[in-house]
Amino acid sequence: MSANANRALVLKEYPVGAPGPEHFEIVESPLPEPGAGEILIRSIYLTVDPYMRGRLRPGPSYAEPQKIGEVMIGEVAGEVVASQSDRFAVGDYVKADIGWQTHGIANAERLRKLDPKDASISTSLGVLGMPGLTAYFGTLEVLIPRAGDTLLVNAASGAVGSVVGQIGKIAGCRVVGVAGSDEKCDFITRELGFDAAINHRTTDDMSAAMRDACPDGIDCYFDNVGGPISDAAFENLAMWARVGICGQIAQYNDTEQAMGPRNLRHFLVKRASLRGLLVFDWQARYHEGLDRLTRWVQEGRIKYREDIIQGLENAPGAFAGLMEGKNFGKQLVKIGDDPTR
Amino acid sequence: MSANANRALVLKEYPVGAPGPEHFEIVESPLPEPGAGEILIRSIYLTVDPYMRGRLRPGPSYAEPQKIGEVMIGEVAGEVVASQSDRFAVGDYVKADIGWQTHGIANAERLRKLDPKDASISTSLGVLGMPGLTAYFGTLEVLIPRAGDTLLVNAASGAVGSVVGQIGKIAGCRVVGVAGSDEKCDFITRELGFDAAINHRTTDDMSAAMRDACPDGIDCYFDNVGGPISDAAFENLAMWARVGICGQIAQYNDTEQAMGPRNLRHFLVKRASLRGLLVFDWQARYHEGLDRLTRWVQEGRIKYREDIIQGLENAPGAFAGLMEGKNFGKQLVKIGDDPTR
Repeated sequence: MSANANRALVLKEYPVGAPGPEHFEIVESPLPEPGAGEILIRSIYLTVDPYMRGRLRPGPSYAEPQKIGEVMIGEVAGEVVASQSDRFAVGDYVKADIGWQTHGIANAERLRKLDPKDASISTSLGVLGMPGLTAYFGTLEVLIPRAGDTLLVNAASGAVGSVVGQIGKIAGCRVVGVAGSDEKCDFITRELGFDAAINHRTTDDMSAAMRDACPDGIDCYFDNVGGPISDAAFENLAMWARVGICGQIAQYNDTEQAMGPRNLRHFLVKRASLRGLLVFDWQARYHEGLDRLTRWVQEGRIKYREDIIQGLENAPGAFAGLMEGKNFGKQLVKIGDDPTR
Repeated sequence: MSANANRALVLKEYPVGAPGPEHFEIVESPLPEPGAGEILIRSIYLTVDPYMRGRLRPGPSYAEPQKIGEVMIGEVAGEVVASQSDRFAVGDYVKADIGWQTHGIANAERLRKLDPKDASISTSLGVLGMPGLTAYFGTLEVLIPRAGDTLLVNAASGAVGSVVGQIGKIAGCRVVGVAGSDEKCDFITRELGFDAAINHRTTDDMSAAMRDACPDGIDCYFDNVGGPISDAAFENLAMWARVGICGQIAQYNDTEQAMGPRNLRHFLVKRASLRGLLVFDWQARYHEGLDRLTRWVQEGRIKYREDIIQGLENAPGAFAGLMEGKNFGKQLVKIGDDPTR
C-alpha cells in the first residue's frame, strides 16, 4: 500500500441472506485531488449501521440501492488533509458521506465540522450523529413520552436504543430495554439507568417477561427489531400506546417472507397507534437535536459506549456482526490514526 | 306467545368458531313495567354488528363479555309503549340499548329520540347510528383525507364501509372499495359513486388489483377486515399513508392464531401510520357527527342500503351471515311492526 493511495471497499455482489466479507473487495486507486469548494478527507472512523442492509439489495426501499462495483456507502469521521474551501482548513475534523474508504473528496458546503473539545469525533457517527438523532426525534416526536409512561425499547444497548432509553429517563418514564446478553442487560440498567432489562436470548416467554417488567403496560414502544419481540410488545400495549417502527433488523437478512401472528387487533382494542420513522424527515431540525444531545452528553445525562474494530478490511465483518447483534454499543471501524485521543 | 309477554334471545354458550342459532335460545317472560324515569320500549328493529363477535368470548376486549344466560346485547330502534319519564310519551320513537328482545325497559335520561320525518327510524342503527359515526370519526379523525388522496376501504358495501367511501368522495378523494360480490361492487360504484371496486372473492392477485385501482398508492386505508386484504393494502401504501384499524372481521371467528407475513417494514419505508379506532372514544362529539351525517343523507350525498331479515328467531342467523359477508348493506332484523313506513 502506498501512502499516496486510496483504499476503498467496493461491493462485489448483493448478499443473499447474511452479508459478509465475501461480498466486498478492497480496491486501490491514486489519491484524488479536491476541486474548487471541495476538501480531501482522511477517514479515521467508519460507521456500520443496520440501514445499510436495506441498500444491499436491488429492490426499492426509501433510498437508492448501493451499486455493484462502487464504494460502499456510509459516513466517516475524518481529518481534512487538503482543502479548496474557505470553510475548512487542513487539520480540521469533519463528518462526511464518503463511504468505506481511507480518503475521499467532498463538497465542503454543507459538511459538519467537528470540534474534538465538544466530544470525541467518533460520536458524530453515533450518539451525536444519525443514530442519536434517530433516537431523539423518534422518541420525542413519534413516541411522545409523558412523565410516568412506560417505555420499551429493543436493541437497547445499541447506538439508537441506548439513546432512546436515556431520553425516556430524562422524560420521566419507566424504561425497559430488551437486549441480547446479560452483559448488555447489566450495562443498560447499571450504567445507563434503565429500570429493567430483558435478555431476549434467555427468556422463554417474552410476553410474560414484558408483563412483569411493565406492570402497567407499554405506553411507548420503540422498535428496532420486529419479529417475536414485537409480537410480545403488542400483547402488552397500554391503552393509547404509541409504537415507533425504526427498524426491523430481525427480517433484514431474510431470504423468504417471514410469517408471524396476525395481531393488529391489539391496536384496535388498545386504540394504539404505530408509525414508521426515518430520521431524514427531520433534517430541517437536526440542529435542535444535536444541541440537546450534545448538552445531555456533556452533562453526563446521556452516556454512550463504542465498539471499535480496527482496519478497513474488517469493516464487512463488523457489519455482518452488527446484523447478528455481536456488537456492544455503537459499532465503529477505525481505519486511521485519531490525533484527538 | 302471549301479547303481554316479552321474548328475548339469550346466550346459551360461547361459540367456538362461527356463531349460529344453536348458541342462543328464546326465553319468554312477562312484560316488565317501567319505574320512575324509565320507559318501556317495543322493539321494531334489532341490529347485528361485527363488534358483537368480540363480546361472545370470555376473554378481555375493550368491553365486558356478554354473559351466558343473559339477553344478547345490542341496540334497537323501537316505540315507546309506556312511559314514566317527562322526556318520552307513548308513541314516541327511540333508540336504546336493550338487547335482542321484543320489549325492554330503559332509563329515559340519555336516550336518543327519533323523528321519523328526519329519516327512517332504522337509520339510527346504521348510517345515522353507531356504524355511520364510526365511519365519520374514523375517516375524518384517523384517515384525515386530503383532497386528491386515494382512499381504500374494505367491506365497502357494508354499514361502515359504504359511509367511509362516501365521506371520502365528499372530501375530494379517489375512493376504491373492496367488496365480496360483483353485485356489491356494482352497487358501490354505480349507486354510491366510488371510483373503482375490487371483488376480493374473484381477484387472484389482490396486490396487483390494488396497484391498478390505486396507481398513486393508497393514502388512506380504512380496514374493517384485516387478513390478506390488508397485506395487499400495506404493499400499496403511498408515502405518509394513514391506516385506520376499525375491525378485523377476517379473524373474529378464528379458533387458532392466524398467521400472516411480517410486513411492518412497509410502514417504515413509507413512513406510514396506523391507528386502532373505536367510535365510543368520540362520544362527546356524537352530535357533530349526527348533524353532518343527517344533512348529507337528506341531501342525497350519502346513500344507504339496508338488508332486513324478519323475525326475532332469525337474529342469530342474520348475525352468523354478517360474519360471512352474506348481508348486502346494513344488516337489520325486523321484529315488530314499523308504523312509520
